Amino acid sequence: MVRANERGVTPQSVDFSAWYNELVVKAELADHGPVRGTMVIRPYGYRIWELLQGELDRRIKATGHENAYFPIFIPMGHLQREAEHIEGFAPELAVVTHAGGHELDEPLVVRPTSETVIGEMFSRWIHSYRDLPVLLNQWANVVRWELRPRLFLRTTEFLWQEGHTAHATEEEAVAETMTAAGFYEEVARDIAAIPVILGDKTPSERFAGAERTVSLEALVRDGRALQAGTSHYLGTNFAKAFDITFTNQAGTLEYAQTTSWGMSTRMIGAVIMTHGDDKGLILPPRLAPYEVVIVPVGRETESGPVLDAARAIAQSLREAGVRTTVDDRSQLSAGWRFNEWELRGAPIRLEIGPRDLAAGAVTLAERLGGDKVQVPIDHVVSELPLRLEAFQAALLARATAFRDEHTVVTDTFEELVRAVASGFALALACGSEACENAVKAATTATPRCIPLDGAPASGPCVVCGAPSGYGTRVLFARAY
Amino acid sequence: MVRANERGVTPQSVDFSAWYNELVVKAELADHGPVRGTMVIRPYGYRIWELLQGELDRRIKATGHENAYFPIFIPMGHLQREAEHIEGFAPELAVVTHAGGHELDEPLVVRPTSETVIGEMFSRWIHSYRDLPVLLNQWANVVRWELRPRLFLRTTEFLWQEGHTAHATEEEAVAETMTAAGFYEEVARDIAAIPVILGDKTPSERFAGAERTVSLEALVRDGRALQAGTSHYLGTNFAKAFDITFTNQAGTLEYAQTTSWGMSTRMIGAVIMTHGDDKGLILPPRLAPYEVVIVPVGRETESGPVLDAARAIAQSLREAGVRTTVDDRSQLSAGWRFNEWELRGAPIRLEIGPRDLAAGAVTLAERLGGDKVQVPIDHVVSELPLRLEAFQAALLARATAFRDEHTVVTDTFEELVRAVASGFALALACGSEACENAVKAATTATPRCIPLDGAPASGPCVVCGAPSGYGTRVLFARAY
Repeated sequence: MVRANERGVTPQSVDFSAWYNELVVKAELADHGPVRGTMVIRPYGYRIWELLQGELDRRIKATGHENAYFPIFIPMGHLQREAEHIEGFAPELAVVTHAGGHELDEPLVVRPTSETVIGEMFSRWIHSYRDLPVLLNQWANVVRWELRPRLFLRTTEFLWQEGHTAHATEEEAVAETMTAAGFYEEVARDIAAIPVILGDKTPSERFAGAERTVSLEALVRDGRALQAGTSHYLGTNFAKAFDITFTNQAGTLEYAQTTSWGMSTRMIGAVIMTHGDDKGLILPPRLAPYEVVIVPVGRETESGPVLDAARAIAQSLREAGVRTTVDDRSQLSAGWRFNEWELRGAPIRLEIGPRDLAAGAVTLAERLGGDKVQVPIDHVVSELPLRLEAFQAALLARATAFRDEHTVVTDTFEELVRAVASGFALALACGSEACENAVKAATTATPRCIPLDGAPASGPCVVCGAPSGYGTRVLFARAY
Repeated sequence: MVRANERGVTPQSVDFSAWYNELVVKAELADHGPVRGTMVIRPYGYRIWELLQGELDRRIKATGHENAYFPIFIPMGHLQREAEHIEGFAPELAVVTHAGGHELDEPLVVRPTSETVIGEMFSRWIHSYRDLPVLLNQWANVVRWELRPRLFLRTTEFLWQEGHTAHATEEEAVAETMTAAGFYEEVARDIAAIPVILGDKTPSERFAGAERTVSLEALVRDGRALQAGTSHYLGTNFAKAFDITFTNQAGTLEYAQTTSWGMSTRMIGAVIMTHGDDKGLILPPRLAPYEVVIVPVGRETESGPVLDAARAIAQSLREAGVRTTVDDRSQLSAGWRFNEWELRGAPIRLEIGPRDLAAGAVTLAERLGGDKVQVPIDHVVSELPLRLEAFQAALLARATAFRDEHTVVTDTFEELVRAVASGFALALACGSEACENAVKAATTATPRCIPLDGAPASGPCVVCGAPSGYGTRVLFARAY
């Protein structure tokens, strides 16, 4: 029998990075692929992604977008048409030079993102104001060569959705950028139980080719920021590079205004790092492959009244819409199985043994802790959905409290340096790249965003003392 | 205003190939990508794929499989480990030689299929009989360099699902192969309204590396076969190449038995070619992005009682679970919109004008033809689901009748040559590659499969006269 502690992970306080890397593999969320930097997403991890996809896809469609699919291969020449875009992505590209047994005339880039191939198609499809807006989304894999890969957070290939839209006016395109940022915020908060700060990137941190990048910044348990999604207002930059024009109602030719926005499998990394503890994962019920795990306890092997009861309870929970499994691996001790489902972050565990059954009850343990309680079997189906809702809310409250405790308003460079060692710092900044670089050099922290709902504030830049530039404080942090 | 005939397509009888190519683009199912052979799947085509995916995914999960995701990049060396596999795929590979600004030490293949990368992971994960079976599926893009690309049927990149499983015994693995073939048959028949013949491939037509390939063969309207899915029993070929071993209950090390099976966006091509006519697509309701299209007729522009009524009917149909849209493009004539939705294959069209409204009715037209009928608005929600069911059944009956009328039992080479000019031929064959090649040389037809439910038959080979080899007749056809 495998011993329980072989499933354990390095404590977060000892080495957060080791904790994360071990947990991802031991909880069977993902594994390293044969090519360095690539990731195999195992069923337990992929199920989390499917649940997230479902929530996101529903919101994307409800706001009028349609799904489509564009090719993974982009001619190198296309990518070079938008100057800032190619400059930003050049170091990360994977390039196909041979195919069908021959060297290609023009190398093909494996998409790092799809603005260029979609720009080319928009140019073919859009002619009149009547063709606008075009509101598309695709679920796809993209490739960005990573020097320091890490499962879910930075992998050479990752899965995401990328929205791409074209509009007649700047006003509409900016509103679209905010719509996407809005449903990302909602999914992060209501589904992943992750509170995020929405804000504009400073110019140095914008997407390559964007006029404006709105990002969602989460704070994870080692005090670093994690960008959980971005939404870009691209202005007419890609329209000019790809000749996306339309005849407006007055009969004049105009460039379209475009946007793009994406959320990826990185969100799974955010969930792990926001909620996990030394025992392992803690999954928000809405993303848990199994919200409830039932562990039969005792000597039974493949049949018997305890196992029958466990299966009957599981069945009624499933019928009530609760994702439930029975861990009936009789070759493993009950304790081992308890530890495993703590490691794997199942929100609620129900234990059932002969004594529970005799009492017509199950023993309930929540992954967030607290005393075990007995619940009459007859009450399981009515009580568990409420407990799961409360669990979801408690997880968000816990993450919000942690974030707030680790956010400091700073007025001096020294305070800023101290604050970013363990969380977010809100500081006034003049907006110069020189001052951003000074912060980075001293702390590795970067301006994460200029919060959209930041209180009005002005005064001297925390670095150089010049007047602050954004009308509110800038959020600084060390980031993943 | 665009004239209706600009939306028309070349008649099938004039040039089936032109009919298909024009229809795919004009119905806005797909478009050509910037790189030759690549495909952009537009929202209308992608929605068909999503509906098919949903049906397939449900069946895959209901039979105990879990979804996962494996990397798109495979080291060239991995692909070479199974000798027949690399021989089969070598001419179709796209190869990444540079990444992150450097030439790679080992070139990476963009997956043409994932047996090799999954074999490598199975080898890491499988140790004991307790780890078996492993039942995985992935939804992914794959790349096979095509010399004669055609949208949906043969594209350099396509979307599919690929199931990959590992088992302790040959019996279980063969049963799994048949389970997958079984739900493919069900989806083809009950969802796509395509009757398919299930059978084993002859050795020359098997998947590269398989012991046994079961395929689904459809017959499309120009009399050619179209392979709609395949399921492979791989024996221990990949287990030996990737060292997938397990300790059995007796404590002995054994190779695992593996399978793989796939269905792709090619199915959309099968739907188009099986059901379409000279007016355009005819979509089975279960795969139609819109089962019902409501076209308001008359002078109204953006509001008014007719449009209000159209929207109210659409809303009640949607609430009844019927995918419905209102085509309220008042700048286009009603006739133009009727033609467009015939081209795009919507099963049922409801026309509503002032006279209909005054009579409390709509005018209903079905895409399969027949007289237009008036339906009281109050009956729409109760009547249309029944009509859609009947439409689905009629489409399958029509395709089955066509297939049966174009299937000939042949006993001489001359009969075989005549039969494959317009459909399926069932003939006795000795099983030699020489005889298969003789048929191919004379007709371009190939053995599509040895039908699983073929009546017992024996006698002289239709080519050489030697005794027949399979206990039943072989299905021959020219194929896409």
